[in-house]
Amino acid sequence: MTVTSGSLRSRTDLCAAIENELSGLIGKRAASATAYGAHFTRLWELAGHNVLGGKFVRPLLLMETYDALRTRPQQKNPAATDQPRTSPPNTDNRETAISIAAAIELLHYSFLLHDDVIDGDLVRRGHPNLIGSLLAEAQSLPRTTNAEGAREGSDLHWAQTGGILMGDMLLAATHQAFARADLPHALRLRLLDLLEHTINETVAGEQLDVGLGDGIIDPHLETILMMCGYKTATYTFELPLRAAAALAGADFAVENALASAGRHLGLAFQLQDDLLSTFGDPRRHGKDPFSDLREGKETAIIAHARTTAAWPDIEPFFGRPELNGAECEYVRRHLADCGAEDFVNGLIEEQMQAFNDLLTSTIPDGVCSVLLDLAGQLEGRQS
Amino acid sequence: MTVTSGSLRSRTDLCAAIENELSGLIGKRAASATAYGAHFTRLWELAGHNVLGGKFVRPLLLMETYDALRTRPQQKNPAATDQPRTSPPNTDNRETAISIAAAIELLHYSFLLHDDVIDGDLVRRGHPNLIGSLLAEAQSLPRTTNAEGAREGSDLHWAQTGGILMGDMLLAATHQAFARADLPHALRLRLLDLLEHTINETVAGEQLDVGLGDGIIDPHLETILMMCGYKTATYTFELPLRAAAALAGADFAVENALASAGRHLGLAFQLQDDLLSTFGDPRRHGKDPFSDLREGKETAIIAHARTTAAWPDIEPFFGRPELNGAECEYVRRHLADCGAEDFVNGLIEEQMQAFNDLLTSTIPDGVCSVLLDLAGQLEGRQS
Repeated sequence: MTVTSGSLRSRTDLCAAIENELSGLIGKRAASATAYGAHFTRLWELAGHNVLGGKFVRPLLLMETYDALRTRPQQKNPAATDQPRTSPPNTDNRETAISIAAAIELLHYSFLLHDDVIDGDLVRRGHPNLIGSLLAEAQSLPRTTNAEGAREGSDLHWAQTGGILMGDMLLAATHQAFARADLPHALRLRLLDLLEHTINETVAGEQLDVGLGDGIIDPHLETILMMCGYKTATYTFELPLRAAAALAGADFAVENALASAGRHLGLAFQLQDDLLSTFGDPRRHGKDPFSDLREGKETAIIAHARTTAAWPDIEPFFGRPELNGAECEYVRRHLADCGAEDFVNGLIEEQMQAFNDLLTSTIPDGVCSVLLDLAGQLEGRQS
Repeated sequence: MTVTSGSLRSRTDLCAAIENELSGLIGKRAASATAYGAHFTRLWELAGHNVLGGKFVRPLLLMETYDALRTRPQQKNPAATDQPRTSPPNTDNRETAISIAAAIELLHYSFLLHDDVIDGDLVRRGHPNLIGSLLAEAQSLPRTTNAEGAREGSDLHWAQTGGILMGDMLLAATHQAFARADLPHALRLRLLDLLEHTINETVAGEQLDVGLGDGIIDPHLETILMMCGYKTATYTFELPLRAAAALAGADFAVENALASAGRHLGLAFQLQDDLLSTFGDPRRHGKDPFSDLREGKETAIIAHARTTAAWPDIEPFFGRPELNGAECEYVRRHLADCGAEDFVNGLIEEQMQAFNDLLTSTIPDGVCSVLLDLAGQLEGRQS
């Protein structure tokens, strides 16, 4: 999949428009926050820094899909060149689409924050997350009221509270953007339905993930695949695609085909992530090497390994935070040898086959290009 | 303040209408939750049980204020008997008011849940809260995957995760109800503004409270009073009163007077709560005796005591979880003797004076009765 200079340019423009919208949403709130003092304002500053430093995967998917649905069909389907393919010509929701796209990025960051609180994480992609930043700042404050012994616990408590509260405010901000969307009421209600469905599914996925990690829910492969779809694929792929279709006035058949394609692609990405975390080269993908093994994360890789004769050799090392490099290498070799790596690669191929099958029929050509471009990023990560 | 049998009957009707609306909001979501399995459904069941067992203080305040604003003025102002006092005769938003009132109860419960996660609480008013119930249920599950030693920690982690996630879903449900309110768009936007302001202020108050407890923020009296107002008074009093005024079409002057009255009343209630926790009879008010002292809660009582010569005698016992009954009695006596009890009673009187001053002018008579009835509950708790 090659990206033309034209689409590169338009992606740069889109990124600028999304960034501008996010700056507005966050800047307005950071300004009101000053009335409540420095600590409250700091939450918005840190959140703004982290949100605006993102890659805008979800907003870009929404906007590129929206633009593709609103553009005249390409030459290979000449019979329809005079008409936009799927939407009535007199409704242009592009400005609103930008604000919904930005709101979805806020939702993403809200989920990340509460996930970080739940997982006790202080770092994301090698940098302190909001909680880590608040912790470092609390530790540098001069204080006389707390005994030094209790201070470490209260600094972390303060920082994690900041994560919960900022996640709440971003969830609220997401809903405010959807609720205020400048659209006919019925279409706004349709987007609110989508948001509600997405949050339910993401929360259900998060609960499954935590239940698997805490030993409350049994780690069957089927449960793990369901968790991957719910926790990430729904809000990362299905929500932007369905929102784009609704805003562009696409047929419901197109919207449903997009949602299915998005779910397959999302599951493939998640499985690929698990493979990279376990078998990938950390210098290339930037993830913490072996963190999944040390944390005892219940992935499809582990679910398959449990069904093989190699599991008794792996189990004693699984979920042990103190594993050294040699032990991790040992587990990794066993996971490859028992067929778990091949098995998950097979699952990814199945998902990509189902994804490709959907591109041949209902989905307009321009949107297929957007999706194939995204799928190309998956292939890039495999190499 | 006596309550007539008429207003008793109408309060029973109102409670039934609010309960019916809440049952609908929660029941719909509990039904969709079944698609995601038993653990996810359980969150909604527990939340429903707790929400529907509440006293509906906030929804009742909204509805009684709404009804009072929409009712013809009483006889003592005969010149205006032919016209509703503050709202145009052709807009009746009573059904929508019920749904906003119910949504505010969901917001209250969302705040309580995240507050319980932040404070590590498992009990509320003598019963297990949602987190305590999830913990007990996790502990009773037969499990083989986790070592017994790690199990205690993961059961609590699972339960607290449930608290975070259910708080998120209730915050989302609150916004959905506001966003879908069957109102002219401008009025819906006005309610969304109110909701946004309320959440900002409540979150700022929660952050102040935690910062005071964790020794990040200095415990000045002014900061503590600000925290009390933000954390509780805004969403408990100002939000229902302003929402009622907006829905009833009241003048902005009336809405502002109501909001001020609500803030004074809310602060008086909060200070009264602190007094009851420290000086009240636990058999009568039902609160844990001395929990504030043991937790080291920074209240106005403590802020005053810090400024007196008695503080060096109190400080060694303050914030010590292991305090025995005799030590607590000792601290309590010192707090009374140093004038902290009288000081806070004086603050409450100031707030009630400011509240009463507002009732004489802009606020219609019927609404004054609603507010005086509420204030009477405060006086009842003092005796």
